[in-house]
Amino acid sequence: MTEYGHGGDIYSQEVELDYSANINPLGMPEGVKEAIRRAVDQAAPYPDSACRRLRGRLANAYGIGADRIICGNGAADLIFQLAWGLAPKRALLTAPSFSEYGQALRAAGAEVVSCMLREERGFAFSLEDWKKKAEDFHPDMAFFCNPNNPTGLAEPKETVTEMAKFCREMGIFLVVDECFGEFLDEPERYSILGEIDRFPNVFVLKAFTKLYAMAGVRLGYGFCSDGRVLEAMERVRQPWSVSALAQAGGEAALKETEYVEKTRRLIRAQREFLKNGLKELGFAVWDSMANYLFFSGDPGLKEKLLERKILIRSCANYPGLDGRYYRICVRTEAENRRFLEELKRVLEHR
Amino acid sequence: MTEYGHGGDIYSQEVELDYSANINPLGMPEGVKEAIRRAVDQAAPYPDSACRRLRGRLANAYGIGADRIICGNGAADLIFQLAWGLAPKRALLTAPSFSEYGQALRAAGAEVVSCMLREERGFAFSLEDWKKKAEDFHPDMAFFCNPNNPTGLAEPKETVTEMAKFCREMGIFLVVDECFGEFLDEPERYSILGEIDRFPNVFVLKAFTKLYAMAGVRLGYGFCSDGRVLEAMERVRQPWSVSALAQAGGEAALKETEYVEKTRRLIRAQREFLKNGLKELGFAVWDSMANYLFFSGDPGLKEKLLERKILIRSCANYPGLDGRYYRICVRTEAENRRFLEELKRVLEHR
Repeated sequence: MTEYGHGGDIYSQEVELDYSANINPLGMPEGVKEAIRRAVDQAAPYPDSACRRLRGRLANAYGIGADRIICGNGAADLIFQLAWGLAPKRALLTAPSFSEYGQALRAAGAEVVSCMLREERGFAFSLEDWKKKAEDFHPDMAFFCNPNNPTGLAEPKETVTEMAKFCREMGIFLVVDECFGEFLDEPERYSILGEIDRFPNVFVLKAFTKLYAMAGVRLGYGFCSDGRVLEAMERVRQPWSVSALAQAGGEAALKETEYVEKTRRLIRAQREFLKNGLKELGFAVWDSMANYLFFSGDPGLKEKLLERKILIRSCANYPGLDGRYYRICVRTEAENRRFLEELKRVLEHR
Repeated sequence: MTEYGHGGDIYSQEVELDYSANINPLGMPEGVKEAIRRAVDQAAPYPDSACRRLRGRLANAYGIGADRIICGNGAADLIFQLAWGLAPKRALLTAPSFSEYGQALRAAGAEVVSCMLREERGFAFSLEDWKKKAEDFHPDMAFFCNPNNPTGLAEPKETVTEMAKFCREMGIFLVVDECFGEFLDEPERYSILGEIDRFPNVFVLKAFTKLYAMAGVRLGYGFCSDGRVLEAMERVRQPWSVSALAQAGGEAALKETEYVEKTRRLIRAQREFLKNGLKELGFAVWDSMANYLFFSGDPGLKEKLLERKILIRSCANYPGLDGRYYRICVRTEAENRRFLEELKRVLEHR
């Protein structure tokens, strides 16, 4: 089998506390669970191939026409559809970032180059470096993760708009992955979604999976004002990629506005709590703005924590990083307390 | 949006009786529903990327090693993975047959040629014609649907084995789609699954969706004794293509042996009942061996039945067929009686 290089593998090892996958610690809202359970009775027929009702709800929620929305079997499904459908010859990534962009692009035959985020600058994105890389490499596609995974650093929408403008001039199709955008304190300050009418060369990727803790259900979506892009994506996929259960779950999730507010408050408070705890234990911690924290310490931490049935994400397989880097998600206060205590014990036993 | 060319579109029109999608009329087994509903509580984390437990259950059920099994987001997902992963230059199909083979193959850049099943021979498969076509065209991949969709005609395993042998000699990778195989009276007489050890150039495709009425849940699977083929498929897809809900549903479905027997008895009896009814009304009906019937009559029947909220599959968009051909699924006796009565009324009002 192909090697699994992501967080969240709670199936091949015994895990009590999963800090490796960036899922909302509040769990799936009861309203979503109920909607999915109810949908089981209607799940004998094929699902609506065009996800019409769900896309209608998304259109209402975002004030964007349903004809500009596409749904997928998780955001990762849409990443592969973008790669296969647009079939870029050359693609520009940033590194470190989410590895599936490169997987999908290479599978689809693209040459991939990364603009490295440099540690000496705190892994901050440099628009200047990125533009220079693009001018040298002449990509026809670029992926940008905002906030970035694994660092949790987000660029304001002005910067992303500048990137979109540059890409439009250069003939580059820009995919902005905002899958963790809703976990930011002020999502609207960072999202380029409001600009997609001006930029038909931009695709904005979002996910239900993380925000509503529906990763096992699989549901992602995206926006693009160029209908030809959405059609190209549909041509490279099966007609029934989004299950009837996921469609029902997504429709219900969009009603959960209070849950989202509660999530943001929890993440904001617990991110600080967890960050301070890590710093007190001597780790170098970056200023993540998302629902996960990026830090560095001694190699071997993942293995030691796993002995205590706690799973964290080693970032050793991210390009530009090594075994000293880790990513953990932000969970509830009780869990975070236990995590910090266990971590402390691990360090004491060194 | 891309045009939808399959049965089962109960979303853009009002339908009371769906005869257009070949789903088990007994509906999803209660045990499967219950398993999926229970799995909702465990669906916050990412699903097992490798579907280990489900593949283990399939391995037990079929007596074939789990390392030879792959699961997908419905059989259609695996068809696209085969096309992208093996990237054939030239592919041979039969026609009329399931249209997604061609969709996937063309999307992946293959040249596609079809061996036509001729009406004057009752759309029966001719091994001789097919071999000749392969010798002329030199494909590197071939798809064969057994039993065929839309005709319902199945070839015995000896014929398919002969095809596999021929393909092995010719360097052709053969995909045998047995998605409707379990609906046959004696599945073992038609399945090539027992021969896959001898033929690493064969992939056998199967689905939970039709047999267990789980089309809205999405779950397909396949067998191949060449591990490199399965790895090539995994490289072109996202890591989490099969939802946790589908995996749980599939595990439960494999316990439903009595339901499968009951299904076969129902289909056998009702297929005859429906076939005789159609014949009495003057239609030409082929001798389908599956859970659907292929027949011909006057064009316009689909539209007239839709006025009565009954949806049938017009086969006008199948290569080699036209608006005179139809496919209907076999449903329960009460439904089939109503269907025949409504059909009779439609004919009387001509």
